[in-house]
Amino acid sequence: MKNLKILITGGAGFIGSHAVERLYRENQVTVFDNLSSGKIEHIKNFNIKFVKGDVRNKEEILKVMEDKDIVLHLAANPDVRRGEVDNFIDMEVNFIGTYNVLESMRLRDVKGIIFSSSSTIYGEAPIPTKEDYGPLEPISFYGASKLAAESYISAFSHMYGIKGISLRFANVVGARGTHGVIYDFIRKLMKDKSKLEILGDGTQTKSYLHVSDCIDGLIFAFENSVKIYDEYNLGTEDTTNVLEIARIVVEEMNLENVRLFTTGGEGGRGWKGDVKNMHLSIDKIKSLGWRPRMGSTEAVRLAARELIGEIYGKENTNSGSGL
Amino acid sequence: MKNLKILITGGAGFIGSHAVERLYRENQVTVFDNLSSGKIEHIKNFNIKFVKGDVRNKEEILKVMEDKDIVLHLAANPDVRRGEVDNFIDMEVNFIGTYNVLESMRLRDVKGIIFSSSSTIYGEAPIPTKEDYGPLEPISFYGASKLAAESYISAFSHMYGIKGISLRFANVVGARGTHGVIYDFIRKLMKDKSKLEILGDGTQTKSYLHVSDCIDGLIFAFENSVKIYDEYNLGTEDTTNVLEIARIVVEEMNLENVRLFTTGGEGGRGWKGDVKNMHLSIDKIKSLGWRPRMGSTEAVRLAARELIGEIYGKENTNSGSGL
Repeated sequence: MKNLKILITGGAGFIGSHAVERLYRENQVTVFDNLSSGKIEHIKNFNIKFVKGDVRNKEEILKVMEDKDIVLHLAANPDVRRGEVDNFIDMEVNFIGTYNVLESMRLRDVKGIIFSSSSTIYGEAPIPTKEDYGPLEPISFYGASKLAAESYISAFSHMYGIKGISLRFANVVGARGTHGVIYDFIRKLMKDKSKLEILGDGTQTKSYLHVSDCIDGLIFAFENSVKIYDEYNLGTEDTTNVLEIARIVVEEMNLENVRLFTTGGEGGRGWKGDVKNMHLSIDKIKSLGWRPRMGSTEAVRLAARELIGEIYGKENTNSGSGL
Repeated sequence: MKNLKILITGGAGFIGSHAVERLYRENQVTVFDNLSSGKIEHIKNFNIKFVKGDVRNKEEILKVMEDKDIVLHLAANPDVRRGEVDNFIDMEVNFIGTYNVLESMRLRDVKGIIFSSSSTIYGEAPIPTKEDYGPLEPISFYGASKLAAESYISAFSHMYGIKGISLRFANVVGARGTHGVIYDFIRKLMKDKSKLEILGDGTQTKSYLHVSDCIDGLIFAFENSVKIYDEYNLGTEDTTNVLEIARIVVEEMNLENVRLFTTGGEGGRGWKGDVKNMHLSIDKIKSLGWRPRMGSTEAVRLAARELIGEIYGKENTNSGSGL
């Protein structure tokens, strides 16, 4: 991906800032972010244009779409669990936001979109789950909003000749993450080093993709995909479980004698709407010639190390003690 | 379906008014309709409650949801082709409207929904198309909006214990229809009996379900479905093509020497976003014990007869000549 004018929505966020870092040298990158979970400091060292704005606002997104070649659309509510208490946020941000992006693309004649979809669109599907699995019955609002967004990308692609691609991400982990099990465990252990509460029964088994592989895979998929619209799973070939992640985090924090305990949860889930076992087949993207460098356990360990360094660094900076 | 308080959205419309006719004797039926394509005269002879309102308006739908047992959600933009010139209407009416219905159901503790989905969610899938076909890549905004709506019904079902069912309709035809190929042909022939323009190349082959079978099937599916959320195709076991439909309409109008000609169209389609060949597998609902009484050709012929009678009746009434 070179010499393109790329708009990255959510570009100051977790995955977004890694995309910026990867793409800004060889392309003209504009970041569009409302800074609700993204942070300016994530991208301040890169030579890019930053526009503060919200995908829910049609005028704001239309304005920034002028003269772009492609859109990497990552802006979304990043908190899958929030749907438990609020079924509107995913609909508005993830779905309506995507519709607004697509309609602005049509109006400004922008001809390519890479979309951050999710394994959650499959609901509780048999694993490893292939892209052609059906019927799609998401069990969370996050999953429903991502599937709704995919549907519209498909229609916009076919109706207006926009090249679209939906990447269905496994759990993406790494530096600058602000949600998810690793982040939660570190936060909890910083408050109390004697014990660690694990949501669900601890046997939830999922695939974890390091953010560096995620960026690598999504660029590769867009460049090598042939159809006007297509979808690819993006994950690893293995899985790990929540109890194992707890042990890795404890180890990486150099803690000892931490008492791990589980909350149980309905059907062993971490929360209502949580898919208990997630493993995406990555045969489709492998057939294009790509595979992730890290497996799930390796990705989790590296992410834990990165997040621990970051969080401790920040805490120390905040308290004025430095590092 | 007996002794239930049923809310029928779009109940004054084509499919809706047939549902009312079928259900009002043994249930307490409330019709909610904005009368944009529905008509009061369709339901004036039935003992029901009518509330004029729009599913796009949260307050209106919430008010009418009070004290209902189930919702038959048919309110939608009925014009698949309109997406060609307006990509917003389906999103707003079919998708946001469905979200509003679902959220009102949650707030008023209504525990069942029957949803009118569509064959168009499959995009250009191999035929006959089964419910578990994937990946779903709709090529029209109508199809995208229906798939987006299905996604949310699935999530609401799983998150709040609402029994949901999506019926993916083939082309539904019959009395009181206001759109579609049969209706269009009759209208055109009434204007000019010497020739009939056929959109596309005339070989478009699709499955046509008579509205009486449609109502029968959707009630049967809801009553016999076991999962908290499920989806069923609703169609016939055969198909017919557009040229054949033209011949049937000409015959039923007792016309002779009508010159049929086709417009061609991109890839032989009737319009941009038209799926050229549609045939739904109905094995899944058949395995529950249901099958339609009419095949496609029979349904088309009966619908043509019904619509011709209706349209001529109306024209004659309007001109004061009676019948």
